[in-house]
Parts: sequence; C-alpha cells; structure tokens
Amino acid sequence: MVQGKINEIHGWAAMKPGIKVEPWSYTPRPLGENDVEIKIEYSGICGSDLHTIKEEWGGTSYPAIVGHEIVGKVITKGEKVTHLDEGDLVGVGAQVHGCLQDDCDACSRNLDPHCPHGVFTYNSKYADGHQAHGGYAEAVRVNANYALKIPKNIDPIYAPSLMCAGVTVFAPMLRKGVKKGDRVGVVGIGGLGHLAIQYAHALGAEVVAFSHSPNKREQCLELGASQFVDTSDKSQVDAMRRSLNYLFITSNSDSNQYNDYITWMTFEGQIVLLAVPTGQMTFAPIEFIRSEVAITGSLIGGVDALKKTLEFAAEHNIRPIVERFPMDKVNEALEHVDCGKARYRAVLENSTSSNL
Amino acid sequence: MVQGKINEIHGWAAMKPGIKVEPWSYTPRPLGENDVEIKIEYSGICGSDLHTIKEEWGGTSYPAIVGHEIVGKVITKGEKVTHLDEGDLVGVGAQVHGCLQDDCDACSRNLDPHCPHGVFTYNSKYADGHQAHGGYAEAVRVNANYALKIPKNIDPIYAPSLMCAGVTVFAPMLRKGVKKGDRVGVVGIGGLGHLAIQYAHALGAEVVAFSHSPNKREQCLELGASQFVDTSDKSQVDAMRRSLNYLFITSNSDSNQYNDYITWMTFEGQIVLLAVPTGQMTFAPIEFIRSEVAITGSLIGGVDALKKTLEFAAEHNIRPIVERFPMDKVNEALEHVDCGKARYRAVLENSTSSNL
Repeated sequence: MVQGKINEIHGWAAMKPGIKVEPWSYTPRPLGENDVEIKIEYSGICGSDLHTIKEEWGGTSYPAIVGHEIVGKVITKGEKVTHLDEGDLVGVGAQVHGCLQDDCDACSRNLDPHCPHGVFTYNSKYADGHQAHGGYAEAVRVNANYALKIPKNIDPIYAPSLMCAGVTVFAPMLRKGVKKGDRVGVVGIGGLGHLAIQYAHALGAEVVAFSHSPNKREQCLELGASQFVDTSDKSQVDAMRRSLNYLFITSNSDSNQYNDYITWMTFEGQIVLLAVPTGQMTFAPIEFIRSEVAITGSLIGGVDALKKTLEFAAEHNIRPIVERFPMDKVNEALEHVDCGKARYRAVLENSTSSNL
Repeated sequence: MVQGKINEIHGWAAMKPGIKVEPWSYTPRPLGENDVEIKIEYSGICGSDLHTIKEEWGGTSYPAIVGHEIVGKVITKGEKVTHLDEGDLVGVGAQVHGCLQDDCDACSRNLDPHCPHGVFTYNSKYADGHQAHGGYAEAVRVNANYALKIPKNIDPIYAPSLMCAGVTVFAPMLRKGVKKGDRVGVVGIGGLGHLAIQYAHALGAEVVAFSHSPNKREQCLELGASQFVDTSDKSQVDAMRRSLNYLFITSNSDSNQYNDYITWMTFEGQIVLLAVPTGQMTFAPIEFIRSEVAITGSLIGGVDALKKTLEFAAEHNIRPIVERFPMDKVNEALEHVDCGKARYRAVLENSTSSNL
C-alpha cells in the first residue's frame, strides 16, 4: 500500500461556531488505492465555508477545516490511479468521493453530488468514520476522480473559484440547455453571479444582470451582460416582464421577491436557485399554471460538470475576479468575505516557504 | 361573405353565480373567413365550467354559456377554410382563437394558449368585443384551426373529454418528454387523472396512482397503473421516497402536502400542477437545492398538442370513462359533477330532435 507523504496535516480549523479559525492539525485517513494526496497551493473562500463554521446550516462537527475550492499538486497517488501523476496541478471542489457506478441512480445520471455514498469535502464523513477536512490547510487526500487536472492556459490563481462557484453556475446551464439567443437573468452579482454572467454570455445567451448595487453596472457589462437592472428601481424591474428564459438566483435574496421573479419569466421559463434565500417561499399555485414557469434548484456539480466547467473556461477565457490573501491571513479574509466586501472571490495562498 | 346557418344560438347559460343554468340565446358574431360553424352533438363538463359559473375564479361575465369539450359537425365554413368540410366531425377545446404566427413568442413555441391574441372558449372576449360562449348549446362558431377532426376510430361520445381533460394531461407529458421506463405519479383520480394514467402508461411509463379513495384501486390498475397508493396510509406514502421522475397533480389537494410530494421525487424530478390546490404553497428554498426537483404547471394545450392528443388516443385506444346526460338535464349533471360523484367525466348530449 502506498503511504502518503504528509502524515499530520496542518491547517486552520474552526473550533466552535463563529468566523474565527485557528491552527490545528489532523492525521489523515490512510491513502486509498484510488486516492491522491495533494499539496495545496490555493484555496478559495466560499459562502458555504462561512455558513459551516458559523454553524448556520446546523450540524457542524468541530474542529472543522473548511474550504472546497482547492488547487494544488499531486504529491502521492494510490496504486490504482492511472489518469494522474505526481506533479500534476489539480483542482478539487465540494465533493471528494462518489461511487460513480452505473447502477447508482444519481451517478449514472451525472448527478454524483447526490450519490448516497458521496462524501463532501468538509464537515462530512467517510464510510470508515473519518471526517473529511478541506482546503484551509497544507494538504488534502481525496478520491482521484474528484481531482481534476487544471488546463494549462488557466493561471492557477484563477482555478479555485471555478471548482465550486464556477461549476455551481455552469452545471445547471448545461443540464437545462442554455443556448445562443436565450435571455438569461442573473440575480446577485458576487462570487457566483460574476461567473454566471461570463458562462451564460459564452454560451451565446443575452445576459441581464440584476443587483441592488448600481455601482456594479460597468463591471457586469464588461463581463458580458448586455443589460443591468438596478432592482431598487421599480421602472427598470417592471420592464423585465415576460422577458427571460432562465433566471439564476445567486444571492440570499428575500424570498418575498419570488412572486416578482415569476413575472419576469417568459412562458416555460426556469428559475434556478443556486443560493438559499432567507425565509420560506410562498406562491399562489395558479401562478405556475398561468405562466408554466418552473422553479428548481441546483447543488454544485459532479465530475462530468467539473471537467466541462474547466474546459469551457479555458476555451472561452472565463476567469474569476479574485482577491488574494496569504493563508496565514485567513481570519482577515473570512471577515472581508463575511461583510460582503469581496470583489468577487477571495483566494488563500499557501506560501511555498510556509510551514503549512 | 359566407353567412352562418344558425343566427340565434340557443343554449344553457348561468345568469348569476351558482351552479344553475337556464335556457338563453345569443346572436353569434358574423362568421369570419377563417371560422367554422359547428352543430354541437356532445359537450363535456369540466371542473372549469363549475369554477366559472360559480365565479370562483372571479370576473365571470353573465350570462355565460360554458362548456369547452365540444364535439359536433361542421355545418358552415368561412371562405378561407380549406382543411375542413361541411359534415366533418370536429372537436373544440378550451381555446377558439390564437394568432398562430411565427413572430408570436407563444404561438411559435406551440404555446398558443398563452397567445396575447388568444380567445378562450367561454367567458372570454374577441377583439371585436363579442363574448365567446361555449358548448352547453346547439351550436358554436370558432376559428377553424381550433376545430380538430376527430379520428374515425374514436366513438364521438369519447371525444369531448379528450379536448380539455385529455390534452391538459398529455401536453405536458409531451413537452417534458415522458418516456419508456420513467416512473410517473398521478395525484387525484378523476376526469384528468384517469386519462393521465392511460396516456402515461401508453408512453411506456410505469404509473403510480395516488388517491385517498382506496375504492378506486382496481379501476386504476385496469387503466394501466402498476401501483396504487392510498394517500391516507402513511406507510404506503413513505415508501414512495425518491421514486418518481414526474408527478402530475390533477386534484385540488391541500397545498400543505407539497412538501411531502417533493420527497417522492427523484433528483431532477418534475412536479406539474394541472389543477389549482387550495391555499398558498410554501416551501423551504433549500428543498429545491437539496433535491433539484422542479415545480411547474401547465395550462390546457395548443393546436399541435390537441392533434397529438387525439392521434395518440386513437392509436393507443385511450378512452375516457364517461357518464351521459341529455342536454336538458344539464342542471342534474352539474350537481352530479359538483358533488364529486362523476366517474369520471360527464358528457351532455344534444338530442337530434331537441330544439337546442
């Protein structure tokens, strides 16, 4: 059996609910024959990291090292791993294991994030009871299928944000079949939204960006939106009536706005939740019959979607706008993201000379 | 200009909110060059008729002759009508006019029920201000595109129910792509539900019928369901978890049940409302992300769907189960339907010797 090289992984863990992490280490599970060990170079900060360390989604198992936008080099591989080699630059997203078998209802349909045997990157348990820990660390061990080679023409600093934010917006566009000529709305211009604009634009869609921050207008147009709607301006909003084929919700907007959103959709339009709005969503059932609009949601993306997300970004020059923080400034970075200041995605960097 | 033959149309109209109709007549609008005049032989009773005459949906313009499951013979045709001849047996559904132009966002996508120039069969106004009246009458004039030839091997008594109930269930199955091997649930076994079972079964799907009336079990299995779930039996309901690809809601079930329905769906499953549940529907947004289930609705069906509904019924021997009432017993028939006794669709017949 191949031994991993880093037998005590140092990282930054949340020890209790809050937004503070502190140095902590854990002994990784033995390197499986289908696993790889990755020395982490970059780790993006995702909103899910904050929800988890603050225990806003319930059930956080502390200590917890979060981070599921991981980019680094393969330093060890299990004996059955054939598609990766030591030294390969790879990315890991929000999932580190799935069965990927043809007889799995989820995996057979490329819905491996819903695999009953799936393990998420952090705050999740392997079948053997070991807790999975994420990217705010020096290394990580994952199933090799979930370590995706980063295309050569993507600068590594831009790759982490594609592994969660990128695939989260692109996977449903692929599944729903967003195409040239469709009118696609994006609500919320942040880590997910600024990538959603680029992906939809590159698919040939006409993109409308919705935000209550008018100072994001120019940036949205530069990213590929053909229109910017200030959601605090009623006349701009009203002009959207029955004009969109798809609407991707990337902000935790107030659920009460959903009855407005439905009116923006053309018949058979689809509203796709990628973030969780606050509160309950309430609809008059007749709205669905009157408009034939569908409301659905999407959770991250599986291996197949991750590959396509990276390839499509490489081909169409889709890049996140990132702010860089050294790993040891992780607490500053978390506060920056928590108060909504990130433009648009924060990425932690491990110094090559760091102990971590 | 071709003159119509029946210049005063006698029928049964609601004069005020309630479930009583009485003899009344109206002067039809002039027969347009694209219109046909139809001598009505059969008129089905649809739940929408009752909602309209009771003014439960608001805005009923009295007197109102309802009925939008019409079957009869063409007795006059406008000069531009080429695809129909006098004597043809035709059916008319819930719509009597749509622009059907390529530059219409709705019509160009076979969504003509949403055409901005559309006219419904009753309680709806033509552009010239004339009110449209429906099938509880001796005759009707409609745009010839909305008069569909009844296939020869369908006994005329079975055709009315296909024109609204049939197309309402089949149109979304076609659009969503229900196919062999899919697991399709049908909630509510009535006029729509008993046809939904047959259409889904004939498409090759495995059908699960849901009802709180266990005495409908045998009938559902005979119609093609492979499973019957008594919704009042928690163990039967719980066993449905993550098992359905589609769920068609044909009953005005309590909206509170929707959070249960979501759990019956497999990932990416679709819940399609065909009837309006009572009350508001409330969801936790995370449900959509966790399950990727979509909720949508569907309103009747356009010309293209109507053609396919009739052809598919002819080919696969899909027939409604009907109860017959003479037209002059229309008030008895309405009461029978209103108290939920119809098994499963009531059809009014004009006697050939009747004055109507």
